[in-house]
Amino acid sequence: MQPGLDLQTVSIYAPVVDQLAQVEEQLYELCQTDIADLHPLLDYAIRSGGKRVRPALTLLSAGFHEHERKLSLIMAAAVELLHLATLIHDDTVDNAGLRRGKPTINKMYGNHVAVLLGDYLFATSATFVCDTGVVRVIRRFSETIMELASGQLIEFFTTFDPSKARRLYDERIYRKTASLFCTSAETGSILSGAPENQVQALRRYGYNVGMAFQIVDDLLDIQGDASEIGKPVGNDLLQGVLTLPTIMLIERYPDDHPIDRLFASITNGDSDVDHLLQKSLDMIDGSSIVPDCFAVIRDYCSEAAAALDDLPDCAPRRSLLEMVDYIRERSR
Amino acid sequence: MQPGLDLQTVSIYAPVVDQLAQVEEQLYELCQTDIADLHPLLDYAIRSGGKRVRPALTLLSAGFHEHERKLSLIMAAAVELLHLATLIHDDTVDNAGLRRGKPTINKMYGNHVAVLLGDYLFATSATFVCDTGVVRVIRRFSETIMELASGQLIEFFTTFDPSKARRLYDERIYRKTASLFCTSAETGSILSGAPENQVQALRRYGYNVGMAFQIVDDLLDIQGDASEIGKPVGNDLLQGVLTLPTIMLIERYPDDHPIDRLFASITNGDSDVDHLLQKSLDMIDGSSIVPDCFAVIRDYCSEAAAALDDLPDCAPRRSLLEMVDYIRERSR
Repeated sequence: MQPGLDLQTVSIYAPVVDQLAQVEEQLYELCQTDIADLHPLLDYAIRSGGKRVRPALTLLSAGFHEHERKLSLIMAAAVELLHLATLIHDDTVDNAGLRRGKPTINKMYGNHVAVLLGDYLFATSATFVCDTGVVRVIRRFSETIMELASGQLIEFFTTFDPSKARRLYDERIYRKTASLFCTSAETGSILSGAPENQVQALRRYGYNVGMAFQIVDDLLDIQGDASEIGKPVGNDLLQGVLTLPTIMLIERYPDDHPIDRLFASITNGDSDVDHLLQKSLDMIDGSSIVPDCFAVIRDYCSEAAAALDDLPDCAPRRSLLEMVDYIRERSR
Repeated sequence: MQPGLDLQTVSIYAPVVDQLAQVEEQLYELCQTDIADLHPLLDYAIRSGGKRVRPALTLLSAGFHEHERKLSLIMAAAVELLHLATLIHDDTVDNAGLRRGKPTINKMYGNHVAVLLGDYLFATSATFVCDTGVVRVIRRFSETIMELASGQLIEFFTTFDPSKARRLYDERIYRKTASLFCTSAETGSILSGAPENQVQALRRYGYNVGMAFQIVDDLLDIQGDASEIGKPVGNDLLQGVLTLPTIMLIERYPDDHPIDRLFASITNGDSDVDHLLQKSLDMIDGSSIVPDCFAVIRDYCSEAAAALDDLPDCAPRRSLLEMVDYIRERSR
């Protein structure tokens, strides 16, 4: 698998590339607040790059019907901003030093600023959504923020606890990742004036793409190159976070896996952490776990594609299918 | 001045006492989320006490017109929840150990949980507001969250910087405190179906009461008894936060005040911090600064009362005036 999914290099975004540029502009306009001290912070947070996959999803989902373009543009900016806000708080609570190879906000400006800037961006994104004037969309957006925060809380409560991590795995990755993918697609569709069956179809598409995305991310963490993923390999495990590949490791080698000893060493600050981490990663490499995770990803991709069965053929639908194919192709 | 304003002991809340009990119930229902790990956290956060002055303001402001009671109750619960969320993040970024004499969430459960729980409560409060179905109210609420966060950011950017702290003082205390008072009153009035002039009058009332409240708080910090205010005396100064009395001290004794030396000592970790703090507090005590701050509070109270001039006489109006009198009486 290629590290990461560089969706922008392929033609997936073609139908919305101009609109994505406008979304980018809306985000930069944010930097024009009258609080001068905020400018460099907002600038740094917003210009941090990223695949902009969530706004693309909103714009593509809105592309099935003629509609007031302003609405889907605002919504697209809001979902990206919400994503940026969650990254800032996630990095802060994880005490992460790097994001996309650049120092995190918490490292650059301290936790104090990072918490408050995250709050400010959460609220700004919600205010953007209010500009749509559609209460159903605004409500869905607020619920999504609840799901994102509770997903992170579930992650925290399940660290270093294999059986709980397994039991709550689907719920956790839905809340922390798939929820916003769902909402990005669903709200784009609602704002385009689509009939309810299309809204639900795009919501289902978003859910399945989101679940696939999270598992791609889980794999990257154990397989990626530190310089390419911009954080240390095995970072999840070192934080006590169990993901699909490491949960599979425990399930398949209940008596031989080194995860319990690794967690004990991390907790006690023992010197064999690196050794046990490497052993865990090697055991995963030497098993069928990675191909099996790929199979789970491909299943989600198939579900996502199937969700679009009843939607009319058009450029946005072709792009959404291409996005799924792109993820599927890289998952073998 | 009495330490704190114990509004519940007087008759101010009388017209809305039953409704406040319902608000309390709505907040407790929140603890019934399906995420079991969250229960003790939500319980601790919500049962932390507090004066419930913001929901009282919403309910009293809504009391001028017959209206669907459910709307103002939801709104009242939302403003209190938002307030609780901001306290959790404020305590986290300030690394505060005590709140109302009890250990803070960050001390009890760590910063990680405190940041995410705050996010969850912010989002929950916004979701509550969506239940009103009124976009103007939902939007005002989101803007308020932006103002609260940016007020805290301004506070951070002005720490240890007397001239900047002075210049941005009004803006800062509006954003961090008066904004939510404004919004509590304004949204209550909107949801009751009041005409626009009444909405604006109650908004103005909320603004002025909020500004007065913040200065009462500023004075408490330098005058209160540590056991009664639940945090150390002079805490603001120790954090580098300049409030009205300490700004006045610098302005009146530009060459003699010990604040610059105190800040240098705090920054350098010198041993004379306690001595310089005590000297600052003694200089304030020995000047007319406290009575002069009282005069500012009384001015805000007069403005708040004047805002109600054109509203019809009724129990809620009498309570709102009583609230102002109560603050004014204790500010001499």
